[in-house]
Amino acid sequence: MPPKRAVVLLSGGLDSATTLAIAHAEGYETHALSFRYGQRHAGELEFAAKLAKAMGAERHVVLAIDLRAFGGSALTAEIAVPKHERAEEIGGGIPVTYVPARNTIFLSFALAFAEVSAAEDIFIGVNALDYSGYPDCRPEYLASFEQMANLATRAGVEGGHLRIHAPLLDLTKSEIIQRGLALGVDYSLTRSCYDPRADGASCGRCDACLLRRRGFEQAGAKDPVPYVTP
Amino acid sequence: MPPKRAVVLLSGGLDSATTLAIAHAEGYETHALSFRYGQRHAGELEFAAKLAKAMGAERHVVLAIDLRAFGGSALTAEIAVPKHERAEEIGGGIPVTYVPARNTIFLSFALAFAEVSAAEDIFIGVNALDYSGYPDCRPEYLASFEQMANLATRAGVEGGHLRIHAPLLDLTKSEIIQRGLALGVDYSLTRSCYDPRADGASCGRCDACLLRRRGFEQAGAKDPVPYVTP
Repeated sequence: MPPKRAVVLLSGGLDSATTLAIAHAEGYETHALSFRYGQRHAGELEFAAKLAKAMGAERHVVLAIDLRAFGGSALTAEIAVPKHERAEEIGGGIPVTYVPARNTIFLSFALAFAEVSAAEDIFIGVNALDYSGYPDCRPEYLASFEQMANLATRAGVEGGHLRIHAPLLDLTKSEIIQRGLALGVDYSLTRSCYDPRADGASCGRCDACLLRRRGFEQAGAKDPVPYVTP
Repeated sequence: MPPKRAVVLLSGGLDSATTLAIAHAEGYETHALSFRYGQRHAGELEFAAKLAKAMGAERHVVLAIDLRAFGGSALTAEIAVPKHERAEEIGGGIPVTYVPARNTIFLSFALAFAEVSAAEDIFIGVNALDYSGYPDCRPEYLASFEQMANLATRAGVEGGHLRIHAPLLDLTKSEIIQRGLALGVDYSLTRSCYDPRADGASCGRCDACLLRRRGFEQAGAKDPVPYVTP
């Protein structure tokens, strides 16, 4: 019997690395997919490649798409990435680092990749607790995408069922880290910073850095990545 | 009052040109969106640009995305485009020219473009009658995408409602052409062929050419584009 296959969205960050480990632990042969989308923090792609290799993904594809043509987000446009001193200071509402329709675009490509690879499962490392400000990280969004996906493809017409897996959805950052450490994820191969220094050191003060550092603290583990601020 | 804005997917073909004319007729300021996706028939993009200009679109964006990285379709991979003598010979089922998840990918980018442009309407020239073999041209698919889109975006969180318009959905090819001619569409600026000759002449025998030619015949109009076969 051929192995069951999954497409795993892999950004090179902590969440997607943990998601890849979970897909492997559940017995999937994984086909990892990353995007060069004009992000400030394109250095994460180098880590995505290292992760895919170290963790034994069957294939890793990096797609170039140009989200900068639209603008509208601090991650892709000339808008400053907000900085804080502590994770508790991160505001409510939709943050300026929100990229319009990003998860929808990423999942749509994952859907094409799944269809061509004869995979029926797509894994995405979204998390509703720490990023509740992003509309496309909510469970009702993911359920709706899955429903649409099953109408969009051959599988929907000829039988078969596509599933969207978001195994981190209800976990806190420290639970994600504990889960990943138990599965042997090497977090030195991940990067989370939205605004890294030229030498690759994480800024330590963007939302992604603050949530990550607090997560490691709460998990009682040491974050192995280098930071600008100690 | 500012004009109501719509994003219009514009391939350079007959259907999307007619759709653009309909959006204008309904009073929208249009923001046209085309894709360079590794299609054999990339010459259509030149016509998309001419159409956007001739028809008075406010803006025209061409996004490069690489669907060839996945393969799996005669439109993007090294699979021969099927040829027939007559439109009636076109087979049932999903044709090999189906590009996995293409409309989902295109609509996802349209969604991002709409969100950044403060547009609440997206027009797509899909047609369920002549292309019933494509799963992502069915009305239930479009309704499901609209539902997902309203959960994916700021509009879904903060109020507002995104609508997907598919004004050609139930029209035959000849009805589309009659509608377009009535609205003044210059069909000499459109191309439909999946497999044009190097000089740009349409092959006349791929599914797209056969359906187009039959449509013009049934509409009692002359197709102004050059064909290899008379």
